[in-house]
Amino acid sequence: MKYKRALLALIYTLGIIMLAFCNNAAAQEKGQKVRLAKIIIDSSQLENYKAALTEEIEASLRLERGVLTLYAVAEKENPTHITILEIYADEDAYKAHLQTPHFIKYKTGTKNMVKSLELVETIPLMPAMKIK
Amino acid sequence: MKYKRALLALIYTLGIIMLAFCNNAAAQEKGQKVRLAKIIIDSSQLENYKAALTEEIEASLRLERGVLTLYAVAEKENPTHITILEIYADEDAYKAHLQTPHFIKYKTGTKNMVKSLELVETIPLMPAMKIK
Repeated sequence: MKYKRALLALIYTLGIIMLAFCNNAAAQEKGQKVRLAKIIIDSSQLENYKAALTEEIEASLRLERGVLTLYAVAEKENPTHITILEIYADEDAYKAHLQTPHFIKYKTGTKNMVKSLELVETIPLMPAMKIK
Repeated sequence: MKYKRALLALIYTLGIIMLAFCNNAAAQEKGQKVRLAKIIIDSSQLENYKAALTEEIEASLRLERGVLTLYAVAEKENPTHITILEIYADEDAYKAHLQTPHFIKYKTGTKNMVKSLELVETIPLMPAMKIK
């Protein structure tokens, strides 16, 4: 009887450990989605594009917990060349972002301003990195 | 006598306003330096390079108030292609960074690992942007 109890306790403990292990693996798999969007804009539409992008980024950061940053820069020597460092909490946060009214408005509104769009999936060197 | 005082007060006030205006203009001129470093690494040295870069970034963020971020990513499809979003508080902070022991150690230590380096000066769309 005493051994049976000890055995049950052991099985229970092993179960807890396995559960913790699986959860951890799932968390790692569902890690941050980090991407570089490389965009070239029609120069005659650059100011309109920037206004639309600013509005979209402002709304995304304010309304979506899972959008961790959308850091956009324009090259000084080629101002129509925009790069955005996009960080989403996970793949689900990214999928949810695509369905938001502000993203859909931006995407449809800027369709004819964008000459090319390259989406480059990346792995961050230090995923906990912030901006001071 | 009364008018003279009022005139002096007016000149003093105008002086303060002009000083504030000039300070503001100087602050804007001395604004953030935001850059993309695009680096291609010798594939046989990739792990050594990443270790050296991680050490350098960790030290820069910890020891230098003016280094606001060094967010490094590797492309998933081309892991030897590294991009770093570099944000410095201003040009002086960047110049000071170049003189630090950790930067000099990184620069000399990785010289033979780097196949190409392109430094692209940029203008941020929203300079106050952070990472949540």
